[in-house]
Amino acid sequence: MLLNQHYLFTPGPTPIPERVKLVMNQPMIGHRSQAFAHLLEEVSTRLMPIFGSKEPVLLLTGSGTSALETAAANIIEEGDHVVVIVTGAFGDRFASICEAFGANVHRLIVQWGKICTPDQLEDFLTKLDVKIKAVFATYCETSTGVLNPIQQLGEVTKRLTDSLFIVDGVSCIGAVPVDMESWHIDILVSGSQKALMLPPGLAFIAVSEVAKKVIHDCQTKRFYLDLNRYLSSYEKEKSTPFTPAVSLIAGALEVCYMIEEEGFNQVIERHQLLKKMIREGLKAIELPLLVSDAQGSPTVTAVKPASGTANMIKKILQDNYSITIAGGQKQLKGEIFRIGHMGYCTPFDILKVLNGLEMALHKLDGRNVFGKAIKAAEEVWSQHV
Amino acid sequence: MLLNQHYLFTPGPTPIPERVKLVMNQPMIGHRSQAFAHLLEEVSTRLMPIFGSKEPVLLLTGSGTSALETAAANIIEEGDHVVVIVTGAFGDRFASICEAFGANVHRLIVQWGKICTPDQLEDFLTKLDVKIKAVFATYCETSTGVLNPIQQLGEVTKRLTDSLFIVDGVSCIGAVPVDMESWHIDILVSGSQKALMLPPGLAFIAVSEVAKKVIHDCQTKRFYLDLNRYLSSYEKEKSTPFTPAVSLIAGALEVCYMIEEEGFNQVIERHQLLKKMIREGLKAIELPLLVSDAQGSPTVTAVKPASGTANMIKKILQDNYSITIAGGQKQLKGEIFRIGHMGYCTPFDILKVLNGLEMALHKLDGRNVFGKAIKAAEEVWSQHV
Repeated sequence: MLLNQHYLFTPGPTPIPERVKLVMNQPMIGHRSQAFAHLLEEVSTRLMPIFGSKEPVLLLTGSGTSALETAAANIIEEGDHVVVIVTGAFGDRFASICEAFGANVHRLIVQWGKICTPDQLEDFLTKLDVKIKAVFATYCETSTGVLNPIQQLGEVTKRLTDSLFIVDGVSCIGAVPVDMESWHIDILVSGSQKALMLPPGLAFIAVSEVAKKVIHDCQTKRFYLDLNRYLSSYEKEKSTPFTPAVSLIAGALEVCYMIEEEGFNQVIERHQLLKKMIREGLKAIELPLLVSDAQGSPTVTAVKPASGTANMIKKILQDNYSITIAGGQKQLKGEIFRIGHMGYCTPFDILKVLNGLEMALHKLDGRNVFGKAIKAAEEVWSQHV
Repeated sequence: MLLNQHYLFTPGPTPIPERVKLVMNQPMIGHRSQAFAHLLEEVSTRLMPIFGSKEPVLLLTGSGTSALETAAANIIEEGDHVVVIVTGAFGDRFASICEAFGANVHRLIVQWGKICTPDQLEDFLTKLDVKIKAVFATYCETSTGVLNPIQQLGEVTKRLTDSLFIVDGVSCIGAVPVDMESWHIDILVSGSQKALMLPPGLAFIAVSEVAKKVIHDCQTKRFYLDLNRYLSSYEKEKSTPFTPAVSLIAGALEVCYMIEEEGFNQVIERHQLLKKMIREGLKAIELPLLVSDAQGSPTVTAVKPASGTANMIKKILQDNYSITIAGGQKQLKGEIFRIGHMGYCTPFDILKVLNGLEMALHKLDGRNVFGKAIKAAEEVWSQHV
């Protein structure tokens, strides 16, 4: 019926554009060649506006977690005090990584499904009576679909401390605005398999001048993830210290071209439209949103349906309609499902997953909501275009 | 917004499955090799049930029109009388080809948008007082979207004449049932770019034992399209007389695998579902169908909207939603638009083109039919699965 087609709506990995796949299948080039140096420089430079970075963006071969670890391992020394804002599973992972490197972690825990407000951070920092080396925050918390107010959190951090501000941008960079300097971000990391439309395997790290000094002086034992090696290789020869994922980097250049052709502002605007379409669609068929409109991310949306049905809906979508969505993690396991809508995602893709949900709800309990989510989503789209 | 995606809903060419594209990009092989002989035999044999043929299906490198010409040029001799059933532009083309080879063509012209009924053919044949060499019919008339009752037309032909029955199956073979022997079909031709999910460039010809004798004796001048050469090459060495489109033939084998995996009966049933979904969807948003449900093809559907709007709707779909549909041809030019839904087409694709139409009608005149076609189409689908 569906001809072995599969429709991927997880919040990473995300679908890969045809032209990116084609580029990744070009003949391999050696990573110590002039051609690779040129490729790396192009990618690192063209990613700068996407990361809101004044410096070329560093590329590591590894998953998103390697990017988080890099941000911690190059900053934290045994016994350092750090604050980690935990709004979900990935904030929690950031905290675990900091602990693994010997930090005294002060967790600012927010109810899952809510953002951390600037006031909450201000209260938390004010009450601490130790020197904080860094504040770690998550831009989009993938496990709940909140988009934390990074600009304001950076401002509070800067005003109340002289610590570094380190941001996990894995599941949103490429789909949302960011400006490292004016938002006071010292390290911003991301991964390839989210809004950047690539397979998993590349980690991206942008660092401020201030962070560079701390990284340089950091005595923590590390080798593969030692940012000094990446900074030095890039500066000296536009290269990487270890064998990089050449094909993915070739694909990353094509992604940069795609974003430039669409226009980064238009990319951001498209994700706002996708967010609004899916939210209005879900509301129209009475599937409750975990996160409020104001706090929701333009890249992933979590739904909290009637108790016990989240995994059933997920399974019906998979088994009958070849639509893959994500379930909940940790404390939200079995309670929610999550729909990724970032990167290579168009309004028609939103309509497709809503079509699938309308069909799935009928299968679930005979509910007839055919066309209702679509009506709401198309109305949003028609107002936009 | 749509990331340079394009959605093809013309009644040929049709979308190509990923796995077929991959196979077509395998290393080239020589067409005089054992590997090619094996490939050709596999394809010619596996196509037999799809063509309802007891003989291996012949492959020519050319477009659908070359297949039609082959059917005529290998049968007709100067002065022969033939009947051509004309239910639209492609029946008319079949007649023109016959005339080009010197036939006295008796056109059985039916109002465009209607099938030729067995009674109409019976009347027509009864009134003719010349010996008829062949009756030419179109299975699916692409220009209007009717599906002629080939089985019954074959039966009438057989009962009233001793002429050959020659069928153009270009825009439906691979999506509809057919049985050459019991339906009395002597030559059945098709093309690659329709329900067979390939790029244009291959013509398929299945011939009966009786037709083979006529072809053998036919004195008409021909070379590239001389079926005797193809029959002989295939019989002697599982080869083609001239350099064939090797990649397309490799792709054709993959298409055979796909149809076998889904099951040919399921393929036929899927097309019936697609037909019903699109028809109910179109009715729900009051877009008038050119052809009745009973006479409509499961592969292409023609819509006759309010006068003067057909091309506007087509243009809005193209310019705003990257959806390509087809316009009308000849006397229906500007009067209708046509949506192809054959081959690599799923229920989600039907929903996509209906989503596009709902959006397009709003753009056309502010009509709010959001979700209405979807509701009707999803109801059909939900009853089916």
